[in-house]
Amino acid sequence: MITLAEAQALDAADPFASWRDRFVLPEGTIYLDGNSLGPPLRSAAAALAEVVTGEWGDALVAGWNRHDWIGLPERLGARIARLIGAAPGEVIVCDSVSVNLFKLIGAVLQARPDRRTILTEAGNFPTDLYIAQGAARLEGCQVRTVAADQIVAAIDDDTALVLLTHVHYKSGDLLDMAAITRAAHARGALVLWDLSHSTGAVPVDLGVCDADLAVGCGYKYLNGGPGAPAFLYVAQRLHAELHSPLSGWMGHAAPFAFVDDYAPAHDIRRFLCGTPPVLAMAALDHALGTFDGIEPAALYAKGGRLADVCIALMEARLVGHGFTLLSPRDAAARGSHVSYAHSHAWPISQALIARGVVGDFRAPDALRFGFAPLYTGYAQVWQAVDILAKIMASGEWQQPQFSSRAKVT
Amino acid sequence: MITLAEAQALDAADPFASWRDRFVLPEGTIYLDGNSLGPPLRSAAAALAEVVTGEWGDALVAGWNRHDWIGLPERLGARIARLIGAAPGEVIVCDSVSVNLFKLIGAVLQARPDRRTILTEAGNFPTDLYIAQGAARLEGCQVRTVAADQIVAAIDDDTALVLLTHVHYKSGDLLDMAAITRAAHARGALVLWDLSHSTGAVPVDLGVCDADLAVGCGYKYLNGGPGAPAFLYVAQRLHAELHSPLSGWMGHAAPFAFVDDYAPAHDIRRFLCGTPPVLAMAALDHALGTFDGIEPAALYAKGGRLADVCIALMEARLVGHGFTLLSPRDAAARGSHVSYAHSHAWPISQALIARGVVGDFRAPDALRFGFAPLYTGYAQVWQAVDILAKIMASGEWQQPQFSSRAKVT
Repeated sequence: MITLAEAQALDAADPFASWRDRFVLPEGTIYLDGNSLGPPLRSAAAALAEVVTGEWGDALVAGWNRHDWIGLPERLGARIARLIGAAPGEVIVCDSVSVNLFKLIGAVLQARPDRRTILTEAGNFPTDLYIAQGAARLEGCQVRTVAADQIVAAIDDDTALVLLTHVHYKSGDLLDMAAITRAAHARGALVLWDLSHSTGAVPVDLGVCDADLAVGCGYKYLNGGPGAPAFLYVAQRLHAELHSPLSGWMGHAAPFAFVDDYAPAHDIRRFLCGTPPVLAMAALDHALGTFDGIEPAALYAKGGRLADVCIALMEARLVGHGFTLLSPRDAAARGSHVSYAHSHAWPISQALIARGVVGDFRAPDALRFGFAPLYTGYAQVWQAVDILAKIMASGEWQQPQFSSRAKVT
Repeated sequence: MITLAEAQALDAADPFASWRDRFVLPEGTIYLDGNSLGPPLRSAAAALAEVVTGEWGDALVAGWNRHDWIGLPERLGARIARLIGAAPGEVIVCDSVSVNLFKLIGAVLQARPDRRTILTEAGNFPTDLYIAQGAARLEGCQVRTVAADQIVAAIDDDTALVLLTHVHYKSGDLLDMAAITRAAHARGALVLWDLSHSTGAVPVDLGVCDADLAVGCGYKYLNGGPGAPAFLYVAQRLHAELHSPLSGWMGHAAPFAFVDDYAPAHDIRRFLCGTPPVLAMAALDHALGTFDGIEPAALYAKGGRLADVCIALMEARLVGHGFTLLSPRDAAARGSHVSYAHSHAWPISQALIARGVVGDFRAPDALRFGFAPLYTGYAQVWQAVDILAKIMASGEWQQPQFSSRAKVT
């Protein structure tokens, strides 16, 4: 069993150890929920204030040109492209994950009228399922859900789209993007990957995998702020074929010609819809600067080791307390978080928060711990498990204040 | 003809005169484009910085509850509801105008399968037309465009939805919401009003007009920041009948139950889609504070008088220079901006900007001047027309640097 001193030695040797100081993280908090919401950089408030006063207040409407606000979706897309193995012109930042899912699902269903099934994983992240259901209803299609290990076998000639989350939001299971994409292509289907729990923590190489489509989140490991703009990826070879059903003016070939008929842009901008949210995009842009010069593989290696330490300590110290690991033991088979099932997951999560250990509860019975590699230390993981062991040993989690259910996320 | 001294006297008697000091407006600029992008409040940068550090950085993921981020769409909706004559539970702030148009158009087309026409105005704002075209293509419907004065006569038994902008983005024409809504209802059709050029400048009473649906913009007269979140309105009586095609998790009856099947919320929240953009919404929330205690009718009265001064001075001083008023002369028939056609509108607009008068060019040949009542003064309007007269008299607008066309908005 790893000791606190050994964990501290790992921190001392960690090349990312000093990065923690760049983030605003409350004293006394061990934050294991950066996969739900990343923290702000210490420089974020000033950077945003400068955009308000120095750009918006100074240039007013001229800011669209002078500060190239109109180019933000492409500029931010290019920054994210590097993290996911895409070419710069294949990624654009806009809207929410949910809205971007709808654009791409709708585009595929319209482009493949002879295929009427969206195939996805049972228990996929809710908004992925809900958006697929809404798009399928509009298009007279069906959504078929199967277990993850049945996906490849379930792809057939009616499958228009396979919709999968690369790293499962609850279990952390990491799907084999290359193999699934290959199997789908062999059957004539496209694949849409949700990279929300991957980007900024897990290496992704969309190009090498010959991936078709992807979406991802700006507010988890990318630290863009609560509800930050999302991104979408469309492989260059599909740009001409796919038309967004959300044909708003920013996706027009000539948005400022003010003509009555829609004609899509010839590049990735055809997947834009409304006016770019400049302040939100500026916050994400600032956060993306953190990743310049960092290789996702290095982040992933540290995230995996942090989770390994957690799993080893849980096995050593929480045996007999009713926790069941929901995530793969093998770091190579998971993302940067792990989950445990427990029949009292909710009050335990609240008792942990009261002691400064912020993980997450996912209904109905999961405790989830995220290990964002930029600002999480090995000794913190040791302390978090130590606190959990004490909470379980003392029965502290059974105190009545921990059973109330006002929490929404 | 009004003199500069008379204009200054009007400013001295203007109850809104002191409000200008609350906004960041560059020295030497006469800003007549607040209907394209409102300026920031002087307090906006600090307010946003406080949300970054004091809310996001302090509470991290707990901010969704502790600072009720999750309630922002409804809270901001209630603030806007007061400005447009809606009940608090009928308005919600989310996404962009374009995305919200799609939600409502799609919902109506699905709810009225026996009616297959969207009727709208030729020359309506582009994104309204483009989104209607995209939704119609998905649903196998048609978009029919007619001149504004032909709308009522064109409503027939196949009309599912009449889609209109309350104040026309170019001409400033103000449509008769009550009469058109009544005519549409008599034929069994619904009406969707785009309030982008109305909200915060023109009184709107959706309740009195028995209006069905509306959308509107946060970054024009509401000053919420470039690309600020938009809003949508659905009359209470339609909540149960209409289903958003963008069925994202925030529109679910129980978003955090993480069940696989979509079930819409029972209230206005069913029109939410993805995670609320907290930073962008905080900026809009701060800007909306300006309107507390102000009656839209008072704003409208001042905006109308500012435009009257502009029109009178244009008639007195620009005669023979090729300007044609595109807007109604009667203040009661227009919103808070006026436009002039001119065959050299582009270089003239650029020459004005070079002299500090920021209006807007709208393709192909319109100069547009917006009179945001909170921060525009009568003497400024006098000076703007004076500068325009000098530019025309001297031929200054013909200088070659004013003919380049890099501008995008």
